[in-house]
Amino acid sequence: MGYPTVTYKEEGMREGMQIEDASIPVEDKVRLLDALSETGLKHIVVGSFVSPRYTPQMAEIDDVMARFTPKPGVRYTALALNERGRERAQQYSPPLDTGENSTYRPTLRCHMCDVFARRNTNRSQAQEMADWEQIVSTAKALGATEAGIGTNASWGSNFVGKFSNADRMDIFERQHAMWDEAEIPVTAVSLGDPMSWCMPHEVKSQLVEIKSRWPDIRDFTLHLHNGRGMALVSAYAALETLDETDTLNLDGTIGGIGGCPYCGNGRATGQMPTEDAINMLEEMGIDTGVDIDKVIDCVWMLEDMLGRATLGHVSKAGPRPKTIEEWYDPNAPFVETFEEARHFKLGPSVYEGGIYPWREPIRSEQRPDTLEVAD
Amino acid sequence: MGYPTVTYKEEGMREGMQIEDASIPVEDKVRLLDALSETGLKHIVVGSFVSPRYTPQMAEIDDVMARFTPKPGVRYTALALNERGRERAQQYSPPLDTGENSTYRPTLRCHMCDVFARRNTNRSQAQEMADWEQIVSTAKALGATEAGIGTNASWGSNFVGKFSNADRMDIFERQHAMWDEAEIPVTAVSLGDPMSWCMPHEVKSQLVEIKSRWPDIRDFTLHLHNGRGMALVSAYAALETLDETDTLNLDGTIGGIGGCPYCGNGRATGQMPTEDAINMLEEMGIDTGVDIDKVIDCVWMLEDMLGRATLGHVSKAGPRPKTIEEWYDPNAPFVETFEEARHFKLGPSVYEGGIYPWREPIRSEQRPDTLEVAD
Repeated sequence: MGYPTVTYKEEGMREGMQIEDASIPVEDKVRLLDALSETGLKHIVVGSFVSPRYTPQMAEIDDVMARFTPKPGVRYTALALNERGRERAQQYSPPLDTGENSTYRPTLRCHMCDVFARRNTNRSQAQEMADWEQIVSTAKALGATEAGIGTNASWGSNFVGKFSNADRMDIFERQHAMWDEAEIPVTAVSLGDPMSWCMPHEVKSQLVEIKSRWPDIRDFTLHLHNGRGMALVSAYAALETLDETDTLNLDGTIGGIGGCPYCGNGRATGQMPTEDAINMLEEMGIDTGVDIDKVIDCVWMLEDMLGRATLGHVSKAGPRPKTIEEWYDPNAPFVETFEEARHFKLGPSVYEGGIYPWREPIRSEQRPDTLEVAD
Repeated sequence: MGYPTVTYKEEGMREGMQIEDASIPVEDKVRLLDALSETGLKHIVVGSFVSPRYTPQMAEIDDVMARFTPKPGVRYTALALNERGRERAQQYSPPLDTGENSTYRPTLRCHMCDVFARRNTNRSQAQEMADWEQIVSTAKALGATEAGIGTNASWGSNFVGKFSNADRMDIFERQHAMWDEAEIPVTAVSLGDPMSWCMPHEVKSQLVEIKSRWPDIRDFTLHLHNGRGMALVSAYAALETLDETDTLNLDGTIGGIGGCPYCGNGRATGQMPTEDAINMLEEMGIDTGVDIDKVIDCVWMLEDMLGRATLGHVSKAGPRPKTIEEWYDPNAPFVETFEEARHFKLGPSVYEGGIYPWREPIRSEQRPDTLEVAD
């Protein structure tokens, strides 16, 4: 059984920046966005068109849009939560993709947690559900040929606790029944997790149940947060559960930053670090088209802006060195600090002068180049 | 299929401290070790008896041993690499478990990477293999009834690249054949990973192959490092691959600290964070007997000692709140910073004064307690 097709959405400029210091200068954001555009990432969320009153981090989104350099072939999207936001976003399309050219796949969604729905969007779960009828009738009128179902706060909530497969399936059944009645086939499911309740075995179990119940669903979106360190583990579980006839859409952020002020975990929410996720996907033989080295540049740039280390790993230790040119020097001295560990990009100068405890140089048949070392 | 039995070894005082600042005071180490003893962790490595010349972080191990408070029921072990080290450790047994009471299961081991073997232990892979004959004949003489096989640097090396299943199986076959000849059954395999080369799909594939080749092997030890963020993902893969007739022995460290100066990644090496691993195991229904809240206390204590945030997650966002007493306040204001996120232990005072953007208090049927709020 092969792995699913994977798409990856970089959320650092949106989910990431929205929980960071609002005073990060526009020029820094533009510089970071432009660097992200050069990594090979195919889908980048640039920010959100929301009220600067509650999300001052996005107050200068118009400046970012005006000043960044769109890269042909990269899909740029933005979050908008209402008509006003969508109008603002529309001004920048293109380069912004506001959906005109995407497959029209209307989706019924709601939060599993009514408390979080109210905190996050000022609307109740009941109000979200009340929208469904209109969405379906519009879809019918526009001749939609496929549809989606979805939940947010899917695995549980910091405010009301855990949700089971049965809880989620209850919502999905109601959504699916409405599409069935409209005779529009359901091909996609979306599971959000703003409060980091994902656990790998529960993600697996839920995906198995959806696939068994509705074999026509082949498109799976997981927006997972990482407050309990389970986002990438859960993504791996999904990769092992889905197969080559499926598509898995993953979201993550450089440095694993991210979160919203409503969820109760702030910056500790995080998402899967893009550098670790892309590295894992590539190692698993799933081509992403991303240059991990350039992603690491972005993480280092981000950390300079934030003034702190982020929680990803590959940015600190580097990917597994794959060629003899990348292999480390068998006679490198002690490497101890995070700064010294950066030699994988910066070269041996960063660890020069470290302790060299061996009486004679390390020589090994496994590294024939060491056998030529002069005494 | 059920999950394997899991044992967990806390390596923070050894693998962790050995790569941290050598000037961390003994009293801090004793305080941390004593706090770890109270968490419910069943196996704690206290440090190593090695030369202070190259591991000054362990220079005061005797003081730690003399001053810590052993907790009945906790197994304390220490690392010793030679006869001198073993003699030093012996002085502290008990409370130190130096192996007298453990099942006698001699193991043939070697590093897959000759360069790392030389850097780490001043011995070549060939010298390691040359020991095997003596180990087997001693085992025979002492009447061993079971034996183990094992590799270190199992998945690959920063100095010589990746190892395949075939590479590992070649070593395992040779080790197994020696035990077969001695008519001592092989029941255990150990796979070390000092250079963070583990990848979940490769761990899975290797375990599947071992189980298929030698069904009598039921005891699996994975010592995984986390430089590429794959330790816990790989552990999850192992949990899904093994079954209830197996035992999986995992190693990790509070805060995910750890590494050695020889591997080339220094502090960026890390291990799986104990707080994230224990939390995942418990959520999966695998009882660890550990009080996660006390582990988080240890991580916070550790971070104070190190003067930096560590890379684990559950210490920052807390575990999933499970009871109505633990659920967050639906009317909590914005939670943005890491400091504010600590309310899950410190209470609402840490986020007091945060933005409260809702015109009216959040009320929800899902939280009946909010319906009683006075206007």
